[in-house]
Amino acid sequence: MNDNTTTRRNLLRMASLAGLAGAASASPQAPPRPGSASVYGLKFQPREKVRMGIVGVGGRGTSLLDNFAAVESVEIRALCDIVREKCVRGQARLARAGQTAPAEIYAGSDHSFEALAQRDDLDLVIIATPWISHVPIAVFAMKQGKHVGVEVPAARTVEECWELVGTSEQTGRHCMQLENCCYGYNEMLVWNMVKAGLFGELIHGGAAYLHDLRSILFSNEGEGLWRREEHFRRNGNLYPTHGLGPVAHYMDINRGDRFQTIVSMSSLSTSLASYRDTHTAPDDPRRKEKYLCGDQNTSLIRTARGRLIRLEHNVSSPQPYDRINLIAGTKGIFKDYPPLVYLDGQGGEEFVSLDPYKQRFEAPLWTRMGEIARKLGGHGGMDFLMCYRLVECMRQGTAPDIDVYDAAAWSAAGALSEISVAKGSAPLEFPDFTRGRWQRV
Amino acid sequence: MNDNTTTRRNLLRMASLAGLAGAASASPQAPPRPGSASVYGLKFQPREKVRMGIVGVGGRGTSLLDNFAAVESVEIRALCDIVREKCVRGQARLARAGQTAPAEIYAGSDHSFEALAQRDDLDLVIIATPWISHVPIAVFAMKQGKHVGVEVPAARTVEECWELVGTSEQTGRHCMQLENCCYGYNEMLVWNMVKAGLFGELIHGGAAYLHDLRSILFSNEGEGLWRREEHFRRNGNLYPTHGLGPVAHYMDINRGDRFQTIVSMSSLSTSLASYRDTHTAPDDPRRKEKYLCGDQNTSLIRTARGRLIRLEHNVSSPQPYDRINLIAGTKGIFKDYPPLVYLDGQGGEEFVSLDPYKQRFEAPLWTRMGEIARKLGGHGGMDFLMCYRLVECMRQGTAPDIDVYDAAAWSAAGALSEISVAKGSAPLEFPDFTRGRWQRV
Repeated sequence: MNDNTTTRRNLLRMASLAGLAGAASASPQAPPRPGSASVYGLKFQPREKVRMGIVGVGGRGTSLLDNFAAVESVEIRALCDIVREKCVRGQARLARAGQTAPAEIYAGSDHSFEALAQRDDLDLVIIATPWISHVPIAVFAMKQGKHVGVEVPAARTVEECWELVGTSEQTGRHCMQLENCCYGYNEMLVWNMVKAGLFGELIHGGAAYLHDLRSILFSNEGEGLWRREEHFRRNGNLYPTHGLGPVAHYMDINRGDRFQTIVSMSSLSTSLASYRDTHTAPDDPRRKEKYLCGDQNTSLIRTARGRLIRLEHNVSSPQPYDRINLIAGTKGIFKDYPPLVYLDGQGGEEFVSLDPYKQRFEAPLWTRMGEIARKLGGHGGMDFLMCYRLVECMRQGTAPDIDVYDAAAWSAAGALSEISVAKGSAPLEFPDFTRGRWQRV
Repeated sequence: MNDNTTTRRNLLRMASLAGLAGAASASPQAPPRPGSASVYGLKFQPREKVRMGIVGVGGRGTSLLDNFAAVESVEIRALCDIVREKCVRGQARLARAGQTAPAEIYAGSDHSFEALAQRDDLDLVIIATPWISHVPIAVFAMKQGKHVGVEVPAARTVEECWELVGTSEQTGRHCMQLENCCYGYNEMLVWNMVKAGLFGELIHGGAAYLHDLRSILFSNEGEGLWRREEHFRRNGNLYPTHGLGPVAHYMDINRGDRFQTIVSMSSLSTSLASYRDTHTAPDDPRRKEKYLCGDQNTSLIRTARGRLIRLEHNVSSPQPYDRINLIAGTKGIFKDYPPLVYLDGQGGEEFVSLDPYKQRFEAPLWTRMGEIARKLGGHGGMDFLMCYRLVECMRQGTAPDIDVYDAAAWSAAGALSEISVAKGSAPLEFPDFTRGRWQRV
């Protein structure tokens, strides 16, 4: 272990303990903070360019750096990471991308991000750090008057969700959760089909993060340095938003409907230990680790309008990648992996390809920007489109596609799943982070 | 409506009210009946031939008649149905199948089955009536010393489950639930793969009955005469066993593991009303019907060994047929519709066809009897194999593949789902119908 790793580990350990204490005492009915003004539908001030800093320039942060750098009118003025070399590497990438002035570097300490957030020439702070530091950094940056874009999951506890909402409302700054999957080609296309009524009245959806991360979790670099530790003391859905975000869009969550009740159940935990025992030496210190998190976690969410969502999480077992991405109603059903659709009256009893629907229902954003998005890569282009849209909203002065209430509600599904599991799969109520505004649409 | 329909409707209405009262008061911890001897693992007395009567000769009963008639050493000596013509039709089919002596007919009344069950020359009574009469007929027949094979779901309430168990134990007669899906080609093949350890330690499974029954439910004949009514006052999983039976086999439920906890959630109910409103005349009396049952019901079951099962039910929405039939462990995953498998280390990140596994893992029963089974049809041959196996067990004097404890546990998933839904998705404990014997294997 080098010094950087040790420092990060200590930070994580402290933060993890603090987070756990929060989870244990978190009430899903935590009262809203007094004296705050809603940011529901609040528009950005329009601007010519978007000046940003990026906190966390590891794997994910570097990918975001590349994508933001490709968006017109973006200036990446500052980079922050505990590890200075990562910032230096980011500077070089920005230079190659054509940025003339080098980004300033903030590095070396767990608190380096503070100086970045205190700059007076930034509009936006992007946060791509380990999960446990998302909220402290986002809150600090908003209090410095910056809008923030925070990686998923934005928050790990219900208290943290409220903290994001409260801070966004107190500061009038947006906290956009960087949920790239909401910008996936199929997701945006299917959302248009939903809006056109092809599936009729919506009844249920399916969402998941099923991704065999075993080799990444046991890697000696990158996410392997911290992500496995999330499995030590947490048991639930650690990563709910990739699947849930798109389904929340289909169902107009926070804009006509809302998550109301959740129950969650976890399986036994055995896959990580099984993998570890066949992939590490007998004297590897990781042999002493205990993994609390059940390999498979499945939650059920009921919305205020009675829709049912199945939400799954499994990053420990051998399986092909799957976000489920299912939406069904009185007139039809779509499910992904592979993308297939069945509409009432189409004839036969088989799913058919989604392809015939592409011409009519492709998202205008994909029609307009799909070519460059695909060229840049980043999960097939969705990453670029997410970055592009955030900048577009800020430049044009619209509300963001995904606001702090979405960040809180989608992240809360994970936090509440842990509490439900700890209570023997007891049903829990979701907080209404919008405080009733979801009904006004 | 003809007289037969009216009679049946009245019976159903009375029985439905009785059933509901049962569900409301049913405790999942209902005490076992005293003085009973377990039938766990109890072997049939071996016999040369199997003499049987069939109660209910509608669509399903006629299919069972055809399949049992094709099994060597079976004598179908008696047929019962409220509607005499159905028995007469059954007689003719038996004659065409080569049965020399005609089956005696018991018809005309809700109590006609009693005289059939009281005959002293029957070994087995097959019950293929509307769900609501399964338990009363099965209990009566066992008390007359007959083994019974009862269609799915065997029971609709937890009290009914206990009644089946108690009666089977008091009489020493077996109550086999006729779960044909346990004899499906893929199900039996995958079970062999599970037993060979290909999926490693099991973690989770998936089971469902997703079947667009709208036209059948609104038919003016067959199941349309009674099955829609199940949706009037019940809200949960009305039909759990087709998906759950095979997964229970994979997981050795009642033979090393058991269902322990369940939570269940239902969506809104809108699909049946929506279908009805576009497929019936404005003055159709069914326009006044209210459907309580949520279109989509999803339950989560945790086993004593920590495995997690997802169990879905939807017969009201447009969708392709799907029983999910998923099993996953530390080394791989199988899911059905279409049948695909992924084993750790196979290379790539895609599911592959189940076909390459057929040579090594095909069930001997299918190798031996598959050709005749496929020729007879009946859900691809599984129906014949189920009938064949029950007769084989009775002739050879082994225990049945599926006993009263399986009938109770699998059916209880449906009954408990209703209670959980009524309690806002509260977690409920499964009764241990085996009274601890599941651990002895």
